[in-house]
Amino acid sequence: MDHYAAAMKGVILTVCPRARIVDISHEVGAFDIAEGAYTIAQAYAFFPPGTVHVVVVDPGVGSARRPILMEASGQLFVAPDNGVLSMIYRREKHRIRLIAREEYFRQPVSPTFHGRDIFAPVAAHLAAGVRPARIGPPIRDYQGGFPLAERTGKRTWTGRILKIDRFGNVITSFHALEFPRLEQRDFTLLAGGYEIETLARHYAEAPPGELVAIVGSGGYLEISINRDSAARRIACEAGAAVELKMR
Amino acid sequence: MDHYAAAMKGVILTVCPRARIVDISHEVGAFDIAEGAYTIAQAYAFFPPGTVHVVVVDPGVGSARRPILMEASGQLFVAPDNGVLSMIYRREKHRIRLIAREEYFRQPVSPTFHGRDIFAPVAAHLAAGVRPARIGPPIRDYQGGFPLAERTGKRTWTGRILKIDRFGNVITSFHALEFPRLEQRDFTLLAGGYEIETLARHYAEAPPGELVAIVGSGGYLEISINRDSAARRIACEAGAAVELKMR
Amino acid sequence: MDHYAAAMKGVILTVCPRARIVDISHEVGAFDIAEGAYTIAQAYAFFPPGTVHVVVVDPGVGSARRPILMEASGQLFVAPDNGVLSMIYRREKHRIRLIAREEYFRQPVSPTFHGRDIFAPVAAHLAAGVRPARIGPPIRDYQGGFPLAERTGKRTWTGRILKIDRFGNVITSFHALEFPRLEQRDFTLLAGGYEIETLARHYAEAPPGELVAIVGSGGYLEISINRDSAARRIACEAGAAVELKMR
Repeated sequence: MDHYAAAMKGVILTVCPRARIVDISHEVGAFDIAEGAYTIAQAYAFFPPGTVHVVVVDPGVGSARRPILMEASGQLFVAPDNGVLSMIYRREKHRIRLIAREEYFRQPVSPTFHGRDIFAPVAAHLAAGVRPARIGPPIRDYQGGFPLAERTGKRTWTGRILKIDRFGNVITSFHALEFPRLEQRDFTLLAGGYEIETLARHYAEAPPGELVAIVGSGGYLEISINRDSAARRIACEAGAAVELKMR
Repeated sequence: MDHYAAAMKGVILTVCPRARIVDISHEVGAFDIAEGAYTIAQAYAFFPPGTVHVVVVDPGVGSARRPILMEASGQLFVAPDNGVLSMIYRREKHRIRLIAREEYFRQPVSPTFHGRDIFAPVAAHLAAGVRPARIGPPIRDYQGGFPLAERTGKRTWTGRILKIDRFGNVITSFHALEFPRLEQRDFTLLAGGYEIETLARHYAEAPPGELVAIVGSGGYLEISINRDSAARRIACEAGAAVELKMR
Repeated sequence: MDHYAAAMKGVILTVCPRARIVDISHEVGAFDIAEGAYTIAQAYAFFPPGTVHVVVVDPGVGSARRPILMEASGQLFVAPDNGVLSMIYRREKHRIRLIAREEYFRQPVSPTFHGRDIFAPVAAHLAAGVRPARIGPPIRDYQGGFPLAERTGKRTWTGRILKIDRFGNVITSFHALEFPRLEQRDFTLLAGGYEIETLARHYAEAPPGELVAIVGSGGYLEISINRDSAARRIACEAGAAVELKMR
């Protein structure tokens, strides 16, 4: 957390003094849209209806990328149109609007900090009761997002590392619902030169020191070591490729 | 902070919309129960009566370790039964219950994330007014915790490093109340090959560049350097052994 | 964030249960008064009138340095008198008081943690409605602060790195308002052996991989690389000297 996020919170409380502000994360890798997309997609469903989410992973700030407002799952999301909401809008019924009405912006708008001058005040006005339709018109040509798992052979898929969590778990983009045969343990997961073929039900079930795959709390396949950091063992980073082979 | 903590907050606000949520720390070393125990033991006493503390340092999540609810000091604590509350229950009058009533859990319960599905919703129900007795029966066979200072000779004790704080202060498990003769400065503290024999009253009193011992704000003996990091000098980590010799 | 900040929040909520607490930053470099001064100076203006700011960058805790209360910009600030408020009081009309009335302190006052025992409870009493005049008498002999830009030649100035932000932007102490000719791009900025002569309007406008200068959202000249860390490239730290030459 730093003064950028704090300035946004000050703007929110100035516009909507009764807003309840909850931090989701300020530790998404700088410029890492996929990690941001994964982070908000893992968190939003646990918040009450009517929550307004402010999702500012925004390397293109100041350029032509557009600010958008999404309505989905009974909640609202403001974000740049760069795919950071794609892991939600590919899953949920949604409507997306262009954020267009500058009367809800903070003036003057800094070319380097739309979080403070566009996203925070628009979110605060929404939290204060402004209706989404007043923010701007619906659009259909928003970004499609990035691929999670691409089939590269009859029984092989390529995915990516979405996030390294603070325990060193390596979260991949393979979702258990899309690979139901994982449960029969007929798979090989390849990451950083390591082959993982053991599926554990929870961290403590894994044999000490051994890399195992686990279906994490979000449904994605992750690579873990019981009480140690799998990411350090594998020496990998968010964004790197991983491969899944089914037998 | 990351989306795990955020999901827990969303769950809390869904169950108990008027809850006031305050973060104590999300930076306890992964799997470090002693650091977690120290952290909550340093913080709880400053919160108002009726506060519900959610203490999830939980390397055994999903295994047989039990979830517990402690009543102590006019406050409530939910945590795994792994000793993370031991620095409080060895000090305060307390009652400990098994968290048993699944109607207060979030369903389905993930085997890797009891913070979200057991501890957060139980805490929120307690904050909303559910009485502790409804959560589960009292138990007496909870974990005893870990030793803080063990006598290893007539005038020597072995302890451990509980925490490195963000200033690089090295906080040991030796509590000043148990070593009243510290005030006469008749001691040697050994850590990572260094011998510390100077007791300073506060950081700025310490001679520049010199390792000194200080009785920290929590009463534990800590090793410090005025305006520099003692931890970097000593090259030590939380969990390492330290020795105290009285003359 | 750690249990020190948490204890302060517990104290605040005990004194003033309806206080709304917002974190500005817990990541100012340990003992770095200039970074703390920059951080609060960048954030305060976005908060509502009546906000009470608690600014504890306090390497001199326990020594003779005095605690002060500043009234400025319709807000209140409690801090040690070490220059950490100087980037605000050199810019805004202000009144500064000594924090003297011990009835508003938490007793006993720890010699190492005035944040918990002096600044937090005084701030909470102010938030609860205690008038500034009750806290202590006005003083005029507070610290002057530190220089931001010193003229070292006819067309050269020496400044410092105020902060490295989490994107790796290197924020200097040169404010655009004091160097209006920056807009004509007739300058050389020297940092860590690098010469920067390009001024970009926003991050995405910068050519990939090239060090550029940008007037950041706070008005200070910063050194950036589009989607990468300028600080890593330059290998510099907060506090280091930078030089500005106008042609």
